[in-house]
Amino acid sequence: MGVVVSLGEGKNNKPSIDSLLALVRDDLKNVNDVIIRNMESPVTLIPQLAGHLVASGGKRLRPMLTLGAAQLSNYSGDRHIALAACVEFIHTATLLHDDVVDESDLRRGEASANAVFGNQASVLVGDFLFSRAFELMVEDGSLKVLKILSHASSVIAEGEVLQLMTTNDTETSEDTYLEVIKSKTAQLFAAACQIGPVISDRPRVEEDALESFGLNLGIAFQLIDDVLDYSAKQATLGKTIGDDFKEGKISLPVILAFRRGDEQERKFWRRTMEDLEQSDGDLDYALDLMRKHNALSDSVERARHYGAIARDALAIFDESPTKLAFNELIDFCIDRAY
Amino acid sequence: MGVVVSLGEGKNNKPSIDSLLALVRDDLKNVNDVIIRNMESPVTLIPQLAGHLVASGGKRLRPMLTLGAAQLSNYSGDRHIALAACVEFIHTATLLHDDVVDESDLRRGEASANAVFGNQASVLVGDFLFSRAFELMVEDGSLKVLKILSHASSVIAEGEVLQLMTTNDTETSEDTYLEVIKSKTAQLFAAACQIGPVISDRPRVEEDALESFGLNLGIAFQLIDDVLDYSAKQATLGKTIGDDFKEGKISLPVILAFRRGDEQERKFWRRTMEDLEQSDGDLDYALDLMRKHNALSDSVERARHYGAIARDALAIFDESPTKLAFNELIDFCIDRAY
Repeated sequence: MGVVVSLGEGKNNKPSIDSLLALVRDDLKNVNDVIIRNMESPVTLIPQLAGHLVASGGKRLRPMLTLGAAQLSNYSGDRHIALAACVEFIHTATLLHDDVVDESDLRRGEASANAVFGNQASVLVGDFLFSRAFELMVEDGSLKVLKILSHASSVIAEGEVLQLMTTNDTETSEDTYLEVIKSKTAQLFAAACQIGPVISDRPRVEEDALESFGLNLGIAFQLIDDVLDYSAKQATLGKTIGDDFKEGKISLPVILAFRRGDEQERKFWRRTMEDLEQSDGDLDYALDLMRKHNALSDSVERARHYGAIARDALAIFDESPTKLAFNELIDFCIDRAY
Repeated sequence: MGVVVSLGEGKNNKPSIDSLLALVRDDLKNVNDVIIRNMESPVTLIPQLAGHLVASGGKRLRPMLTLGAAQLSNYSGDRHIALAACVEFIHTATLLHDDVVDESDLRRGEASANAVFGNQASVLVGDFLFSRAFELMVEDGSLKVLKILSHASSVIAEGEVLQLMTTNDTETSEDTYLEVIKSKTAQLFAAACQIGPVISDRPRVEEDALESFGLNLGIAFQLIDDVLDYSAKQATLGKTIGDDFKEGKISLPVILAFRRGDEQERKFWRRTMEDLEQSDGDLDYALDLMRKHNALSDSVERARHYGAIARDALAIFDESPTKLAFNELIDFCIDRAY
């Protein structure tokens, strides 16, 4: 392990996703091929719009989790390829519908699909990708995998609706917020990881461990995502700062600043987030309040808590490059905040 | 069979859906219970919105097809109940997304879900119902049923996208239109029927027969639906006449009138349907042109053609009340036009 440690102490000691990427690179290429093949349709708008999404290329974090979890489970077949593609299809479908719901014009710094192709196409192509994911799962033939991913899908939808209900509600509790991000984000991380041991017929305890790793990693990931929306770091990710603020989306930084604030400050939050009456300087003042109450740094602390649970969930596995890469991924998800 | 014939010649000899309804009434009650139970969620907006849909009550035509097809297959278990509910969930999910795509304010004469709860909730609750349908299918445990319905779902989505691409395009051919309605409507009718013989382990020839019955019934049904949008009969169904015209949706009556018209008339169709430049009197003039070219009556003739194929598909089955009810359903779907 000496080599790995020395790499970690080298000039580039920021945790990164690259170790995991290196371990699953070949598999991920095959996943991409499955994705492209299954977006094909005589209805040309479907591959066009789907191609736009592939080109604007996310990190493919979720399929990488499936591939890594399969590796950690010593899986030797090829079912993980199509199933990792299913996970990405479900994720992409929810992104498409999310952008319609949020009326977003940007996604990862690029024009979002709904901005280019319209809301109608985004809704319908999302439905197509979602259905195609289930077709691929049926081809794979495991009812257990179908159960995991159909359940994840309905929990995601429930989480999105719950998020919609909390929008503009400054009274939202940290618990409700946690419920939202667990459902809308962490559930798919958990399912993506669980598939690895399931197709490898590993003992239940390993399945539970990888599910827990995925769930807690997902919670930490979303917490940091929500911090990034108020962080200067954001600009480097090609996103504009304060999107959540403009929409009145209630994330943990807002919840903490609101609860820790005085009546004057709460009035400010109600005006800007509930009534959406915002003017120049409001976002800056919101950031001031978050700093004053340590709302961003404490949100990162909460993320560290879930990261620690994710790390302990992996403890039952023997040391291996994949385990190291998964642990580094936890650090990467959290350190993105800085 | 004498009784049935004499009923048919009685004072009320309009074909109706009631014979089928009488045969599946008890099952349908159980389907409704499954539907209501599976719409439950701690996220209150979900049962609220879904309850709105249940209350605004469609005919439940598609689940009735599954129940009738199970009856025709001498099915004796109870799997048809949950699977009929799945079919209705998939249908309801597509309706919810359809209304968002069409920006409809009315559905069956009532305020549509998107008008009451907003587009965002409609998109997300649609996703929830769709996922819940797959969870129910996984519980049922038949990979064959999962294959049939996941394939139907992706074909429906493809059909909806194709329809979106043909909107406002007066050059759309009858073949393309047929492709759209086959995909977006008839595929689910076919799948709904096919489930009956599949869960009853009936021979392939019966499965094919019921699939063909459903497919051709679905085509006839949608053809008449599109005729009704230009028919005086429409008002009695609680719909406004000319919705498709206002949206520039290219259905068969428009295709026939456009193709059979002279250059002056085609200019009118291009202005109103492609450029959506419409003023008072345009809908009346469109109706005049349709009458002049027999566009509505010939669309009904096309529906009769598919109805005849549906009827012949059933010919291999012995005479039975269910077969009679299915045949009456074909007539009902077509005679709605008058």
